[in-house]
Amino acid sequence: MTEVQTLTVNLGSRSYPIYIGEGILGQGKLIKSHSPGRQLVVISNEVVAPLYLESLLKGINQAEIETIILPDGEQYKSIATLENIFDQLLSAHCSRDVTLIALGGGVIGDITGFAAACYQRGVNFIQVPTTLLAQVDSSVGGKTGVNHPLGKNMIGAFHQPNCVIADTGTLKTLPPRELSAGLAEVVKYGLITDQPFFLWLEKNMPRLLKLEPDSITYAIEQSCRCKAQVVAADELEQSGQRALLNLGHTFGHAIETGLGYGKWLHGEAVACGMVMAAEFSARLGWIGAAQVKKVSALLASARLPVKVPKELSADRFLELMALDKKVKDGKLRLVLLKDIGKAILTDDVDLTLLHSTITELAQTD
Amino acid sequence: MTEVQTLTVNLGSRSYPIYIGEGILGQGKLIKSHSPGRQLVVISNEVVAPLYLESLLKGINQAEIETIILPDGEQYKSIATLENIFDQLLSAHCSRDVTLIALGGGVIGDITGFAAACYQRGVNFIQVPTTLLAQVDSSVGGKTGVNHPLGKNMIGAFHQPNCVIADTGTLKTLPPRELSAGLAEVVKYGLITDQPFFLWLEKNMPRLLKLEPDSITYAIEQSCRCKAQVVAADELEQSGQRALLNLGHTFGHAIETGLGYGKWLHGEAVACGMVMAAEFSARLGWIGAAQVKKVSALLASARLPVKVPKELSADRFLELMALDKKVKDGKLRLVLLKDIGKAILTDDVDLTLLHSTITELAQTD
Repeated sequence: MTEVQTLTVNLGSRSYPIYIGEGILGQGKLIKSHSPGRQLVVISNEVVAPLYLESLLKGINQAEIETIILPDGEQYKSIATLENIFDQLLSAHCSRDVTLIALGGGVIGDITGFAAACYQRGVNFIQVPTTLLAQVDSSVGGKTGVNHPLGKNMIGAFHQPNCVIADTGTLKTLPPRELSAGLAEVVKYGLITDQPFFLWLEKNMPRLLKLEPDSITYAIEQSCRCKAQVVAADELEQSGQRALLNLGHTFGHAIETGLGYGKWLHGEAVACGMVMAAEFSARLGWIGAAQVKKVSALLASARLPVKVPKELSADRFLELMALDKKVKDGKLRLVLLKDIGKAILTDDVDLTLLHSTITELAQTD
Repeated sequence: MTEVQTLTVNLGSRSYPIYIGEGILGQGKLIKSHSPGRQLVVISNEVVAPLYLESLLKGINQAEIETIILPDGEQYKSIATLENIFDQLLSAHCSRDVTLIALGGGVIGDITGFAAACYQRGVNFIQVPTTLLAQVDSSVGGKTGVNHPLGKNMIGAFHQPNCVIADTGTLKTLPPRELSAGLAEVVKYGLITDQPFFLWLEKNMPRLLKLEPDSITYAIEQSCRCKAQVVAADELEQSGQRALLNLGHTFGHAIETGLGYGKWLHGEAVACGMVMAAEFSARLGWIGAAQVKKVSALLASARLPVKVPKELSADRFLELMALDKKVKDGKLRLVLLKDIGKAILTDDVDLTLLHSTITELAQTD
């Protein structure tokens, strides 16, 4: 039997465990012990389902299981897809004691979680993330939602899962580009709170790219531990602490929206966004040029884009960033770096300096 | 200045006041003291807005106010309308510190509350109910949502308002049929927990129908007090206590869905549903025929329908009731009466007896 690592997200009555281990998605007991009713609905997509649905179902061996298979892609993270899920849940007479199981990456997790938040005003759900990005980030913390043509994740809810089952074995079938996109968020944890982890990543990036078992397990654990701590301190993103997890995201969302969803992967946009945040922090005199270089080099070593896409003007960037959820009373708020391992949230943003920083970055080759 | 009655819904950090009084929707300070950001969006419909929007806006005198006017009717309590609201909020660059103000009846309150629950994962909202039904029931307690073709309120969230402003003056423009529909819920509170209030209603129904000020204020206060207590004891409908508020609703929802939304008003369907629940309770030997008659007579004196619509067969009733949110692990759960003033939730429902009870009620003239 595989060893299962267990971490807990401490949220009082909404606390839940994160299980990490190879081959654990077929361990039905994990799912069974976290689904109070007898109806289960697995929601997956047409890429992941052929790979892992059978193992998952075999493990459960339950009477009432429905499956809903969605098309693959961020463009389906929409209200229309949500309606499709509601139609199927109602047609299958799913009651309030149903448990929804998200089997897939961040898109499946976010939309399944949001469906669970809204179906009959809230039902149970379990995250079974199958991408690195989802395992270290989106499956933990209860943020759920869908996109709107005018902005990413604009419609959603905080709805905590009953548990997260992160099977590291699923990473073997992950396209290299998506593995790298997940590593962007792993690097993020080092940058915002954990300098030793950042230094560890500098040394171990080649091992992570080869999915060396001990290294990848350690990176996932360390990432989830960091995320769980931040979420426990600020579940609903009210104190500003949780907003630190958005390092690179305000820039990144602008890239994703500006280029059209799906052109860049979320992690790719965040990687570039973190370099932009580091560069802007340097222009403010908070960190040095050498540190910006370290950030950029580590991300590049993870095969991530670190250059600002030339298609987007600084004007367009600022316009898109003004739509960001972190805008408060009309003021743009950004997560920036005081050091590697120390991020802060600020609403004192010099827009002229930001504009010139973006312009110059976009001109760099 | 009008006297304002204040009740509190005790929900820890989510506690909020209910203000009751004549002409209070124009008192801007109530709204201002409960909206933390500077952006306000009033959501109303094309029937209510011409009557009360101007007074409300005049009271606020705020810089950034948007208004969204929806068409009137339960058929617009849909995901499509929700999308329309999201489009307008995003186009107006509303950020996470926006406060949505629901000015209207239950449909406006439910859909505005759900929009507030989901917009950017949750923003503030204020209920300004303008129907009796909304003032005594739907605006209090945080249930929000929209309908689905396969069932009422199937998609939604628990999202508590920042405050409720119940202006009794708005009832003067309420169509008589809607006043009666609101009285159905008032009677419900007497039936489920408060026999003295039921007896008071038997004596004072004519005064309520004439909107005699002291009587109507007392009825609203007493109803809100009952609702606030039940909600405080069981915010998320988990312990079964809150489910008592659904007396008559499982039958009522079947009527509404079966006849098509909007044919009967919600309160009318609930009135008939309460008579059905009382009759079924009598068949179980829990209450006597005289008590059923008292229930039916009080509701009839409020000009409410107490006869089962002949268009719906008992088979169709049971089919629709099986879709109810109170179904748990495949078992129908019903709120029934042990006495006037004492409701209980049971999942021990004899479907054969229920079928014959409905069949016989439908044959009664």
